[in-house]
Amino acid sequence: MTNAFYDSSNQVFSRCAIAQSLAGKSVVTLDDISTAQIRMLLDKARYIDSHRKEVAHTCDGRVLATLFYEPSTRTRLSFETAMLRLGGKVIGFAGAQLSSASKGETVSDTLKVVSNYVDVVAMRHPKEGAAFVATQAVSTPVINAGDGGHMHPTQTLADLATILARFGRLNNLTVGLCGDLTYGRTVHSLIETLCRFGNVHFVLISPDELKTPQYVIDRINATESCSYEETRDLMEVIGSLDVLYMTRVQEERFTDRDQYLRLRDTYILTEEKLQKAKPNTAVLHPLPRINEIAVDVDADPRAAYFEQVKNGMLMRMALESSVLGDELLGYEPTDFVNVPKDESQAYDANGISLANPRVHKEDKNAPKDLKCPNIRCITNSELSLVKKFYKDDSDANVYRCLYCDEEA
Amino acid sequence: MTNAFYDSSNQVFSRCAIAQSLAGKSVVTLDDISTAQIRMLLDKARYIDSHRKEVAHTCDGRVLATLFYEPSTRTRLSFETAMLRLGGKVIGFAGAQLSSASKGETVSDTLKVVSNYVDVVAMRHPKEGAAFVATQAVSTPVINAGDGGHMHPTQTLADLATILARFGRLNNLTVGLCGDLTYGRTVHSLIETLCRFGNVHFVLISPDELKTPQYVIDRINATESCSYEETRDLMEVIGSLDVLYMTRVQEERFTDRDQYLRLRDTYILTEEKLQKAKPNTAVLHPLPRINEIAVDVDADPRAAYFEQVKNGMLMRMALESSVLGDELLGYEPTDFVNVPKDESQAYDANGISLANPRVHKEDKNAPKDLKCPNIRCITNSELSLVKKFYKDDSDANVYRCLYCDEEA
Amino acid sequence: MTNAFYDSSNQVFSRCAIAQSLAGKSVVTLDDISTAQIRMLLDKARYIDSHRKEVAHTCDGRVLATLFYEPSTRTRLSFETAMLRLGGKVIGFAGAQLSSASKGETVSDTLKVVSNYVDVVAMRHPKEGAAFVATQAVSTPVINAGDGGHMHPTQTLADLATILARFGRLNNLTVGLCGDLTYGRTVHSLIETLCRFGNVHFVLISPDELKTPQYVIDRINATESCSYEETRDLMEVIGSLDVLYMTRVQEERFTDRDQYLRLRDTYILTEEKLQKAKPNTAVLHPLPRINEIAVDVDADPRAAYFEQVKNGMLMRMALESSVLGDELLGYEPTDFVNVPKDESQAYDANGISLANPRVHKEDKNAPKDLKCPNIRCITNSELSLVKKFYKDDSDANVYRCLYCDEEA
Repeated sequence: MTNAFYDSSNQVFSRCAIAQSLAGKSVVTLDDISTAQIRMLLDKARYIDSHRKEVAHTCDGRVLATLFYEPSTRTRLSFETAMLRLGGKVIGFAGAQLSSASKGETVSDTLKVVSNYVDVVAMRHPKEGAAFVATQAVSTPVINAGDGGHMHPTQTLADLATILARFGRLNNLTVGLCGDLTYGRTVHSLIETLCRFGNVHFVLISPDELKTPQYVIDRINATESCSYEETRDLMEVIGSLDVLYMTRVQEERFTDRDQYLRLRDTYILTEEKLQKAKPNTAVLHPLPRINEIAVDVDADPRAAYFEQVKNGMLMRMALESSVLGDELLGYEPTDFVNVPKDESQAYDANGISLANPRVHKEDKNAPKDLKCPNIRCITNSELSLVKKFYKDDSDANVYRCLYCDEEA
Repeated sequence: MTNAFYDSSNQVFSRCAIAQSLAGKSVVTLDDISTAQIRMLLDKARYIDSHRKEVAHTCDGRVLATLFYEPSTRTRLSFETAMLRLGGKVIGFAGAQLSSASKGETVSDTLKVVSNYVDVVAMRHPKEGAAFVATQAVSTPVINAGDGGHMHPTQTLADLATILARFGRLNNLTVGLCGDLTYGRTVHSLIETLCRFGNVHFVLISPDELKTPQYVIDRINATESCSYEETRDLMEVIGSLDVLYMTRVQEERFTDRDQYLRLRDTYILTEEKLQKAKPNTAVLHPLPRINEIAVDVDADPRAAYFEQVKNGMLMRMALESSVLGDELLGYEPTDFVNVPKDESQAYDANGISLANPRVHKEDKNAPKDLKCPNIRCITNSELSLVKKFYKDDSDANVYRCLYCDEEA
Repeated sequence: MTNAFYDSSNQVFSRCAIAQSLAGKSVVTLDDISTAQIRMLLDKARYIDSHRKEVAHTCDGRVLATLFYEPSTRTRLSFETAMLRLGGKVIGFAGAQLSSASKGETVSDTLKVVSNYVDVVAMRHPKEGAAFVATQAVSTPVINAGDGGHMHPTQTLADLATILARFGRLNNLTVGLCGDLTYGRTVHSLIETLCRFGNVHFVLISPDELKTPQYVIDRINATESCSYEETRDLMEVIGSLDVLYMTRVQEERFTDRDQYLRLRDTYILTEEKLQKAKPNTAVLHPLPRINEIAVDVDADPRAAYFEQVKNGMLMRMALESSVLGDELLGYEPTDFVNVPKDESQAYDANGISLANPRVHKEDKNAPKDLKCPNIRCITNSELSLVKKFYKDDSDANVYRCLYCDEEA
């Protein structure tokens, strides 16, 4: 960790190579970290929950910056509380109108400034690829707290922790995802990450207009131990689900208003519908909800969405302390951190995934005039950024933007 | 305290039943707490002021959330400083545009989320009844920092502490209230609370358009040891006052502009006018002032309105630590906490008021189609809230909204 | 220090009279403090940088208020981090829409309120003279974080620290200032302050429309050991410069668009142009930059503008702890704090400058109807402020506004 305020050279680091490897790292997407590291974070979060006093000075003397270029109170408060509960301190801004961005400063310059103040950054930005820009600008660890519709890795960590808390495992599960499966980034990220743990059957519940994108389906298909089915009807499948992950269906997504009106109620979970589910089904939701889960479900013990909030904070505590290289007092990894052989990925001797998907390196041979077609990509608003592309994993004729992963 | 971050079971609690009883409690209005508890808070605030170092670690490890759906910098900074001075930490937002409320989340859901992060909440909201909704949603203590024009209990605590600091007592006083007595919630709350201590003569100084509402007058009348007089003319009575509580008279309150112009200067306190007051009169004002107290009064030792600010912070320190169940190091209750027999209320063996006014319970027999007519009531903006009503204390034919106390 | 939260009487103060003299002081402009005190701040900042753990509890128990009536994220975060790194805590607001100012409260009243909460204030305000108003209202130390286009003393402290870090001295230097020299307050303040250390040759590089104001030229001329030259062409002089201070040239400043287009590129520093500079030239910029320094310059070791950010934070740590009277653990002044005899100012036995420029006292004989003509002066927006003027140092017939220094 080069940019830390304190020289941490004389601190006692974990003897565990897996944990060490997160120190100083930035996290734009969960593809940046190995499955073994995700297991370690989950293990730490579980430890933190039952040892809150022991960990309360883990990050003494540290400062976190929360750079929120658009408001996202829930996420911001979660990152901030996590650092405060670890003994650290927080500076930051919420909303671009409060930041120097209104004077036209680039993300890169803002990060180069703020890295002089703090030890770790959590950044939210409306443009896709903004978090990647931040990580390139500074050596201070940057955690992506959402870059447009692109990535939001700590939400997925919260989801995983909630499933683990409810079932004691992340596989051998039937996981239903319901609602808008086209635009919900949390849904895509959760499916992709669960595929890394293997042995999951996905039930994809959505109207035809809002089906799961092909690249996510491809990911399931590429994982031998995973399978899926698609349906329009929640009630047809609700009795088979271990996990039911709800998302919102927005009227404006529909081209056909009649179909919207017909389907709308299908995608609202009520206590009455939940009667048909298994007694231990876990209902998740990334929140905030509008009306897609009726308030009467809150009292049902199967409702796990407010637990998700707690788990999100615990996972952020695990992640913040890990990228800072700060040891949790008294923590010893449990067996859970050992990656079983039957998981869908292969690992090297240090537990680092060999198939860690984000090994994307710039292809210097990409055509010079190539542009990212994604209007929400930060390269199309911060024009001084050098365009960079990588070759698609499966199709060598396809270039993808290194910032936002869009096909160019 | 069910939602606390730390298990406080092995902390040493006060042996005093009165103090214990505030631990875990929410405070929407001062009617939620007994007169004995108010005395305890006043006693603690006085102790805190002279033992700032001793109390500086009272709330170590605690986190306060300041959820301010509308800006109120003075109040927010007071709550935050109070927690910081006690050793705790703070997260929060200021202004609804910065919060998830802009995504349509209910107060109840926001509280269920935030209660996963913090140990105590201070909430400000433009809708009346919002604080009550918050207290129903979570078991974390919620302190009302103002819900529209409805309640703002910590302002009244600041007022009481200032009167106590100046006179050493809260009764046997002549208390003048001057200006807009119709719409000033701080004035109503102060009168009602002083009635609980008894032996106060109120002098109500206002133009005819802005007289004290009947329900406040009723409260004075119901208190045997209290009395009042009404007048339009400050100068006629200024010489008789121990306390002069100034509020702002807004032009737009007047139907008759001529009368406004004639009366305007009557309600502006100047150093010249103050010459007619007693040498130890205390001038209070809830702040911010516009021009209703001339700047030249600031230097007069009778000006107590900036002291009120300090007392507000001290009372919030007392209240925050009390609802958290955190003991103040070295504090021993003084005799002031003992409720004298001649106070206007009756108390049980534990010092809990038997006549604690807010014993309002929902009347399940209220007509099903009853609606709260108050357009500023939160039940008229968050439509999913279940309407609830209680029977008026004095008129069994009248139902009042359990959220905002309006007659339905 | 009268308004401090803790009684600091039993703290061990520095035996150094120079350092003591900053305790309790407000800083509106660097003219408020002596050259000896500036040397002490620079010396402390250097110590802090290499003793971060030692100083981490310097301000335990202190609270800073950051009152930012307009957003300036960089500056706000710098002041806040400085206090947090010293062990203190922070409250505040950013943006007038979040503050009581939107209810019409005066700066003076806001300060009288906030001084009840905190030990030190950093204030940013769009009106010139606002910081002076704040210092008059309270005895709590107030640090000016920018009052309109008037003063921004901590920026200049950051500039000085950066020059000192690069050259080990603040004089015997050729200092180029490039771009908008008419409106850039940081440029004026840096020139004036360097004149106090003497032996600097200034190279003023600007288009004709944006030349250095006469009063700044007068200041150079009044300093025997300093000199200057003016030019339109950066490349003509770049090889002679030790320091190159870049500022932005805004198109709207030009009356003649053709001249703007012709000159524009002259005032953009590129790596190519920098090849002509000396190998140890230090490039400074107050940030944020738009395009006046090309991104490819960032990697050049001569680029010092992100170092300036770090130095800004260190100088604010030095200043905040000094005005609070809090000793830095283990700090002993080095010889650098001793003012050499050949510096352009004279000092008394305590090291206090005899020629400290801001000895401006109100001239009670100024004409009663005199008004400040500066529409950005706070006396023209807060009309209840008493107008005050002083006699110009060099022309006894000229009165200047005591708030904003404008000629009346």
